[in-house]
Amino acid sequence: MTALLKSLLIIAATLMASVTHAVAADQQPVLRGTGNLGIIVERTTGSLVIFDATERRMISRVEGLGDLSHASAVFSPDERYAFIFGRDGGLTKVDLLTSSIVHRVMQAGNSIGGAISDDGTLVAVANYEPGGIKVFDTATLAEVADIPATWTGGRSKTIGLEDAPGRRFLFSLWDAGETWIADFSKGNTPQITKLTGMGDRPYDALVTSDGRYYVAGLFGEDGLTVVDLWQSPLTPRRILRGYGNGETKLPVYKMPHLESWALAGNRFVLPAIGRHELLWVDARTFEETNRTAVYGQPVFAVAGPDGRNVWVNFAHPLNDTIQVVDSLTGSIVKQWKPGPAVLHIEFAPRGHDVWVSVRDANVVQVYDAYTFEKKAEIAANSPSGIFLTARAHRMGL
Amino acid sequence: MTALLKSLLIIAATLMASVTHAVAADQQPVLRGTGNLGIIVERTTGSLVIFDATERRMISRVEGLGDLSHASAVFSPDERYAFIFGRDGGLTKVDLLTSSIVHRVMQAGNSIGGAISDDGTLVAVANYEPGGIKVFDTATLAEVADIPATWTGGRSKTIGLEDAPGRRFLFSLWDAGETWIADFSKGNTPQITKLTGMGDRPYDALVTSDGRYYVAGLFGEDGLTVVDLWQSPLTPRRILRGYGNGETKLPVYKMPHLESWALAGNRFVLPAIGRHELLWVDARTFEETNRTAVYGQPVFAVAGPDGRNVWVNFAHPLNDTIQVVDSLTGSIVKQWKPGPAVLHIEFAPRGHDVWVSVRDANVVQVYDAYTFEKKAEIAANSPSGIFLTARAHRMGL
Repeated sequence: MTALLKSLLIIAATLMASVTHAVAADQQPVLRGTGNLGIIVERTTGSLVIFDATERRMISRVEGLGDLSHASAVFSPDERYAFIFGRDGGLTKVDLLTSSIVHRVMQAGNSIGGAISDDGTLVAVANYEPGGIKVFDTATLAEVADIPATWTGGRSKTIGLEDAPGRRFLFSLWDAGETWIADFSKGNTPQITKLTGMGDRPYDALVTSDGRYYVAGLFGEDGLTVVDLWQSPLTPRRILRGYGNGETKLPVYKMPHLESWALAGNRFVLPAIGRHELLWVDARTFEETNRTAVYGQPVFAVAGPDGRNVWVNFAHPLNDTIQVVDSLTGSIVKQWKPGPAVLHIEFAPRGHDVWVSVRDANVVQVYDAYTFEKKAEIAANSPSGIFLTARAHRMGL
Repeated sequence: MTALLKSLLIIAATLMASVTHAVAADQQPVLRGTGNLGIIVERTTGSLVIFDATERRMISRVEGLGDLSHASAVFSPDERYAFIFGRDGGLTKVDLLTSSIVHRVMQAGNSIGGAISDDGTLVAVANYEPGGIKVFDTATLAEVADIPATWTGGRSKTIGLEDAPGRRFLFSLWDAGETWIADFSKGNTPQITKLTGMGDRPYDALVTSDGRYYVAGLFGEDGLTVVDLWQSPLTPRRILRGYGNGETKLPVYKMPHLESWALAGNRFVLPAIGRHELLWVDARTFEETNRTAVYGQPVFAVAGPDGRNVWVNFAHPLNDTIQVVDSLTGSIVKQWKPGPAVLHIEFAPRGHDVWVSVRDANVVQVYDAYTFEKKAEIAANSPSGIFLTARAHRMGL
């Protein structure tokens, strides 16, 4: 072989390597916006489906997220990264553009959701075991703060973890009946404020979309507790006390979720615990205005951004049905059976599409919010939660 | 040269071409999320600055957008594309990831803003000359509909173009005192509904963030007109009639902007036209509750997503100042001079940062919403409007 030939072969080999690299680069995810992405939690396989909410189609699957049997998610402000809170204490940062796990930490033994700070720098997780919250840097998942929920009875399970304006997190202590505020506005060493007398066993909570009110549902008594975060001093106020009127409680098949409580017109609507009712509450006074009898024990009662209609799903064994309630009249305008085990309902940020997971049909359905026509389906393994990246821009989700 | 050598050279040349292509591909913009992007309108140079709102730094500049002396923007649902409405009738689609113009049409002689439909498929522009609106496909900017604002007096200037749920656009006819609804819910041939008796010369309008109310400001009389889009039939209702109480009107140096009217707690706050006052209006009854005396003629009165504080800028010659008003008490909590010609104020979607353009200092400043500390500056040529991509997920912006 001549020297020239040899040189050419080396050049060719080098170029081939470059091209191989270039081809690999071409297989990298395409340049795209992230504002219309979403994820579907596949609860039994510990995986996520990433989907395009405009084209209503699956993009990819990410596996290896552990126990997702009661999982939820928040998103970074750029809407590129999802932070997944698993039931097993796993906190996973997923890159939605490369469909890969960026970081993953096992931060507790048993967890129940989390929140991201308004500036996008801190992610917090509420833990049952050991009870308390932990706070992490969103860039690295390095631990920033560990806040044990210690009270006179030991360590309490924590629930109802929500973000509030000014780098604050609020959460409640199931065993202690307290709500704590962890304020990171001065840096990464939080100032802790403890509110006692929140009531018997707060089981979930919400922050209103303006960040003003923290509302905790109570498992141990008929009623809820609200804190107006604009007032000083902060004073828990019981609302809807005795909404069950001493009637025999039904067994609770599934705890309703409060985070999705909807502002519908001038009223909040919320699922009554253990009752086949929605409660309508004046958004200023927090007094009950009326009730709507529904098909079963409501789990989610979700309004779109227009607050016009409220979509409701139900606890087992009536969990094959959705009812849509008109928020002006409180009447039921539509009822149908999407399929077995309707677990979650998510509105598009401007409300035109509604995403519904039907676990035992292994499908997520997309409905027109106004005509109720089914527009599309995405196959998924035992889908539960559906989360659109648009949540990144909202408080209290 | 042997045949083998020749073949190798051809292979080498082919590979070299591939590598060159691959290198060009590497110079493409990096993979990134789009939820934290924003644009600054550079009004005198017909250009945009694209910036990263998390890192608070400029990414790139896009030129060639024509007359941007009164420009505004909306965004596609994926937050990748901006649609820029120029004063000269130019409608430009800009790719924020590649910093390039994708499409550009001169669709009228003189325009005044636009809107994007809730499903992201239609973009509409309000035109002074010839009066009416035009509607385009967001993918291609192909014309979908041309709706001349014809009334008994000829063709009216159109203003106050807003989106509403269900693929609808609302706009007002300056000369005719009418508001029209173009409903594209059944397809791309709109159903037009005309509301007469809106008042003397509507000059701007807003849709509330829930899409329920369309509110038009009136230039020709003291008052505004509201339409409740949830009621049938649609009935314009005059509010704040005679808020000037027959006092001598000040000359109006700059028309206030209504699109940014803020829901602050239970009240809307709005800039009084030609007066050194903010008007507070009950968000349910639309009755005036109180007023705040401010430094000059307000132009923008903008609340963050928490509605806690309202930031106000002023018309010439008092346009070097910002006042911040507490929405609970109506009192002024902060006042300072960012510099000459403060033109626009934009809150981060979760409210922690506030972006302020200071035209004659050629700078955009970023403030902490709670401490008022200046966090960063971005240089820009005569900056006016600042628009964050998070607007993609909200109605009426």
